[in-house]
Amino acid sequence: MPAPLFNPLVANLSTPPIPLVQAWANEYSGAHGPLIDLSQAVPGYPPHPDMLQWLGEAASSTAYAGYGPIEGETMLRQAYARHVASLYSAPVEAANVHITAGCNQAFIAAVMAVAGAGDTVLMTNPFYFNHESTLAMLGVKSRTVECSAAKSFVSDVQTIAGALTPDVRALALVTPNNPTGAIYPPEMLRAVYDLCRANGTWLILDETYRDFLPSASEPPHGLLGVPSWQDTLIQLYSFSKSFCIPGHRLGAILAGPAVVENVAKVMDNLQICAPRAPQAAVARAIEPLTSWREVNRAEIAARANALHDVMGRLPDWRLEAIGAYFAFIRHPFEGESSLEVAGRLAKEAGVLALPGVFFGEGQERFLRFAFANADAATIRLLEGRLAQLSS
Amino acid sequence: MPAPLFNPLVANLSTPPIPLVQAWANEYSGAHGPLIDLSQAVPGYPPHPDMLQWLGEAASSTAYAGYGPIEGETMLRQAYARHVASLYSAPVEAANVHITAGCNQAFIAAVMAVAGAGDTVLMTNPFYFNHESTLAMLGVKSRTVECSAAKSFVSDVQTIAGALTPDVRALALVTPNNPTGAIYPPEMLRAVYDLCRANGTWLILDETYRDFLPSASEPPHGLLGVPSWQDTLIQLYSFSKSFCIPGHRLGAILAGPAVVENVAKVMDNLQICAPRAPQAAVARAIEPLTSWREVNRAEIAARANALHDVMGRLPDWRLEAIGAYFAFIRHPFEGESSLEVAGRLAKEAGVLALPGVFFGEGQERFLRFAFANADAATIRLLEGRLAQLSS
Ligand SMILES: Cc1ncc(COP(=O)(O)O)c(C=O)c1O
Ligand SMILES: Cc1ncc(COP(=O)(O)O)c(C=O)c1O
Repeated sequence: MPAPLFNPLVANLSTPPIPLVQAWANEYSGAHGPLIDLSQAVPGYPPHPDMLQWLGEAASSTAYAGYGPIEGETMLRQAYARHVASLYSAPVEAANVHITAGCNQAFIAAVMAVAGAGDTVLMTNPFYFNHESTLAMLGVKSRTVECSAAKSFVSDVQTIAGALTPDVRALALVTPNNPTGAIYPPEMLRAVYDLCRANGTWLILDETYRDFLPSASEPPHGLLGVPSWQDTLIQLYSFSKSFCIPGHRLGAILAGPAVVENVAKVMDNLQICAPRAPQAAVARAIEPLTSWREVNRAEIAARANALHDVMGRLPDWRLEAIGAYFAFIRHPFEGESSLEVAGRLAKEAGVLALPGVFFGEGQERFLRFAFANADAATIRLLEGRLAQLSS
Repeated sequence: MPAPLFNPLVANLSTPPIPLVQAWANEYSGAHGPLIDLSQAVPGYPPHPDMLQWLGEAASSTAYAGYGPIEGETMLRQAYARHVASLYSAPVEAANVHITAGCNQAFIAAVMAVAGAGDTVLMTNPFYFNHESTLAMLGVKSRTVECSAAKSFVSDVQTIAGALTPDVRALALVTPNNPTGAIYPPEMLRAVYDLCRANGTWLILDETYRDFLPSASEPPHGLLGVPSWQDTLIQLYSFSKSFCIPGHRLGAILAGPAVVENVAKVMDNLQICAPRAPQAAVARAIEPLTSWREVNRAEIAARANALHDVMGRLPDWRLEAIGAYFAFIRHPFEGESSLEVAGRLAKEAGVLALPGVFFGEGQERFLRFAFANADAATIRLLEGRLAQLSS
């Protein structure tokens, strides 16, 4: 009797990385004090009390118990469009918005709309691991553009130009970057956009961390002001980090109506619609929680400063890049794999960080610290924890 | 400048059917009284007040604001395993359960775990349209097993045996069926299971409507009692209908741990985890709302009886099959497409039903009535509405 088969594209995926690293925590004795978890990107502070109240009100209402529109609640599409329009000083409408159950879903829905098995999508190296595993699972071929520590992990326009062969359906960029923290400057994004446009390639821009950019005074980029941006750009966003509600699963795609229409076809099959009650709650929250988000932005900038300080006092470790949420740090143990170093750091020093190897080939010397998870006082404890890790 | 391309597998999907039919409602004048919506399968009564309270409590708690386990909340996996174990008198454990954001997601996650682009999956004709569109979107080839009105739309074991060629990765069956209402008897399911097992084919059983089977005295089938069921069977379930909470997006996969492990890899990319607050609420609700669900089962049986009565008084229309939630009805307009008939029924008579054509080739003579949406008094109004529809 033949055994039923699994899909090798799925079976060959590695175990999801976050649970793997979190399991190390159980092997830490507590000898140096409480565990410092810098593994998954989760804001270390709770949602605003009003947010929780609105979530509760919507969830207990019959108004959101039934099926909702595939593209998302009209209220949220409008509120998010207004928010983006003001943030980027660009004309953006509800018809440009498709709500998803988080930004991982935004990515897979966007990719499925534009590429199928056998097509090619370009990423950077290092990449956000779920981008890589999503493409692999779908049988979409991926190629990478190298980013170097020497350039603070912002990829190079010339390198991108060389990689944009006619077969490339989409280029996925993450800014501010996960894992490195790299922030792509507006003029760089414009150059990349122009290359994509000239090549007939979708530019998929994952802006999950944009609310944690150090400054709010300038828009993150000017692409939404480019005429006909809707023919080339697909922008992704997550409500998980900015509103501290990853458990409620909400993200958004901003794109032209033709993209929205194709994403809706995908979403109908993926899960009909994103959960409705959180949509209603976030629609209420976007505007009134603006200043709360600004306070968080400042708080996280302070955490970045604390990490800068700490790393300056650890000569063997090197802070190669730091941005809105993450730092990419060179560990001092030449010849030891990043997985081993991260494992020892967890078990011996009680610090959870992700090994570079999860983010691409050639990243063995690096660890990703989701520093935004921890307050400045906790970050200062890293000095002792890292210093005592023996080679 | 070449324009960026869409994925033809997605672009070629038809527009999601439910919104299309719901748009017809705007063209109904109201002349015959309020619209009777038998299009989407949505219970016509609200969730239990305790359910709403628990949803609100969980949603407003910080306990569920963060990311959760990919496979689902332990509490819900345990509660659902206990429920299934008791319903089928079979040993089932939390490790057999993967929670998803609804049963459409359960289906796509299960399919992706076992089949990729170019593989073949077998369905019935008529099929549940999202099964068909999901496979098409993934580039998974689908073939169908014909079900005939003469056999009340239960497919034939011999026909299935003939269709189970060695290349068939999975057979998707829906019982109680959408669209026809057909209920597969336990011995029939056992025969199909044995065929699948002998052929090395996964049996994916979508049991979204099992809580609306006319009787609760017998388990829906005995497959979970078959030793080594975990090597062949993947059972899907939806909390949407039984708990009246489709807007909260919850479903479940029951399968062997190897399937659960592969589905977790898929889910991590699809959306990390299902929304957590509804999981916590449903975990609390499964046991105490048992009798409430029994009352609903009886209520829907009464609605089925009302439809039986009504159809008996409409000699030109024929009730070909009726089951837990749906009826598949032959319309009297020979030569007119089901899309046209359903359109006229909506606009002229104020009754929303789905045209047979949405469910497969050769279904032009049928309409699907989601009769469970309407109470018995409303169902009785169908007599007048249908009778006055001219040919
Ligand atoms: C770059 C990036 N994109 C997407 C996501 C997914 O976020 P979510 O699905 O919670 O919205 C994350 C989460 O860590 C991320 O870092
Ligand atoms: C047979 C079948 N499977 C799955 C679903 C999807 O249900 P949900 O995603 O709301 O759980 C439906 C909904 O109508 C259905 O009829």
